[in-house]
Parts: sequence; C-alpha cells; structure tokens
Amino acid sequence: MGEVTILGVDPGFGVTGFSVVKTDQGKSFLLDCGYLKMSSSKHLSERTGIFYAFMQEKIICHGVNQVALETSFLGKNAQVFLKLGYLRGILYLLADQHKLALHEFAPREVKTAVTGFGGASKEQVAMMMLTMFPKLNEFGSIEKADVTDALAVALCGLWTARQQKLMKRLS
Amino acid sequence: MGEVTILGVDPGFGVTGFSVVKTDQGKSFLLDCGYLKMSSSKHLSERTGIFYAFMQEKIICHGVNQVALETSFLGKNAQVFLKLGYLRGILYLLADQHKLALHEFAPREVKTAVTGFGGASKEQVAMMMLTMFPKLNEFGSIEKADVTDALAVALCGLWTARQQKLMKRLS
Repeated sequence: MGEVTILGVDPGFGVTGFSVVKTDQGKSFLLDCGYLKMSSSKHLSERTGIFYAFMQEKIICHGVNQVALETSFLGKNAQVFLKLGYLRGILYLLADQHKLALHEFAPREVKTAVTGFGGASKEQVAMMMLTMFPKLNEFGSIEKADVTDALAVALCGLWTARQQKLMKRLS
Repeated sequence: MGEVTILGVDPGFGVTGFSVVKTDQGKSFLLDCGYLKMSSSKHLSERTGIFYAFMQEKIICHGVNQVALETSFLGKNAQVFLKLGYLRGILYLLADQHKLALHEFAPREVKTAVTGFGGASKEQVAMMMLTMFPKLNEFGSIEKADVTDALAVALCGLWTARQQKLMKRLS
C-alpha cells in the first residue's frame, strides 16, 4: 500500500460533512474539509447530481484513493434512512468509477478509534477533532458537527489502513 | 409534452427488471425489456457501477426522456432496504444527468393502473402484462416477475403522463 489520501464523508441531504486527509512519511495532513449544503427546495434527483459532482471534484482535485463512511442504522424515520442510501449509493459508484478502496465503519469503531471509547458522545468526538485540528473552529457551530464527524471517519480509515500495513509487515 | 420514451425499473442487487416503452400517435410500443443479473461475489460498489453503466446505456440508446420506479417501503430487512436505496440513488443521478422526468408510484397505484385493482397480486399484474405483450413469455420464470413489474411501472408512468396531458387540454 502506497501513500493514502482518504475522503471521509458524513452524508446527508441537508448538510454533508466531508474531509480529505493524507498521510506522508507517517504523518497525517488535513488537505481539505467542509460541508455541502443543499436546499430542500431542489428536487432529490437534482441534489443527488450536485452531491455526485461535488464529491467527484474533491476526489479528482486531491487525488483521493480511499473513501470512508459510517455504516448507517435504521433510525426512527425509514424514509430518511432510504434517502441516505441514495447518497451512499453515489459514493459507492464514485468508488467504483475512480477505483477507490471503500471503508465502512460502525459508529462505535469510529468513536473508539478517535477517542479510545466506543460510547463517546458526539461532543467528545468533536472536541478531540478540534484539539487535533484547531482550524476546524472556523466553521459555524451548526455545520461543525458534520465536519468533525467526517474527519473522524477519515482518520479511522487512515489508522485502520496503517494498522493493516503494520500487521502485514509483522506477519 | 412531446413524445414519451419511458424507462421502468424494478431495482434489486440480485436481479433488476427493466423495460423501455414508447408512445407514438397514442399507441404504446415496447422497445426493450429484460433484466440485469449481478453476481453477489462482486463488491457492492462494483455492482453499483455496473448498474449505472447498464441503465445509462439504455437511456442513451433508446433516447429515454422519463423514468418510472416504485416507491419502496421498509420490509423485514433494513439493510436490504438501505441497499435498494443505493440503486434508487443511481437512478436519481441518471435522471439529473440526462434531464429525465422522474415518476415514483406506490405499489397500489401501479396495480390499479394496470389491473384496475390496487390489491392485485404479483401474478395478476404479470398475467396482464403477458396478455398485452406475449413476447414476455420468452423470459425464464424466475426473472419474468422482475420484467413484468418493471413493465407495469413504465406503463403506469406512461398513462399518468397521458392523463396529465389530457387534463391540461381540458383545463
């Protein structure tokens, strides 16, 4: 496995958080992060198209070779869950079209990776991310949680990849 | 609204049924129908890519300008429901990229449109489709239901579009 540039995504039709993290000589660098807001006045198919174009641009522009996202679980609203599937499907398609390795992690795995505790709160995850990357404080309080979640899943992907690499060397 | 060429899809990661129906001078013609089978040994992202390429080819090759699919409801398996969302998301994306009008119908609407009865069984829908298009008998018995479902939803879309056109003329 060579250099890793990973795109972490916390998808949502309202706000999608994203982050792009790169490893170089064992160090991690935050190349890009932010969020995509889509107006609910736009038809779902148009928002799907915007989401695809936005993520594709990030993949090409940063030379992304891996993508990480959280496994989603059925909440109270089945239709929201289904629609989340639309955006996840787009990420699966982009992974295929751009030959990206795709990682999925259960929320507990992500929390354990970044805070050491699987039952950590959203705020604890955010706090850890803000300590590691103070630059994130520039984001507004509403969108910040989406960005920190996307960053947490990217780091989880990165560290998992690194661990696998070490395991391979040791075996 | 001019000429209508509609793609009806009954998506599934195992078997996806599709049909392309066209109206010309008030008559409906079946341009194409069949199914896409994807091996479960392939990764979901690869299957998503295959699905996208397959449907895009049908859209371009037949000059499709509308797409119709059934609204999906949460069944017993939430993960199957979520994954169905992946394929629906791809159809939403294609609708946006190719500027197709997108119709979604509840299963009851489709059944009412093609059999006159919202509580019709899958077999009754299939029977009606086979009577209208005897050519469908060429398909194997397992895949036939997916093809007839895809055809039923396409016809439902076609007749709804025609009804809207008539209503517009009358208003």
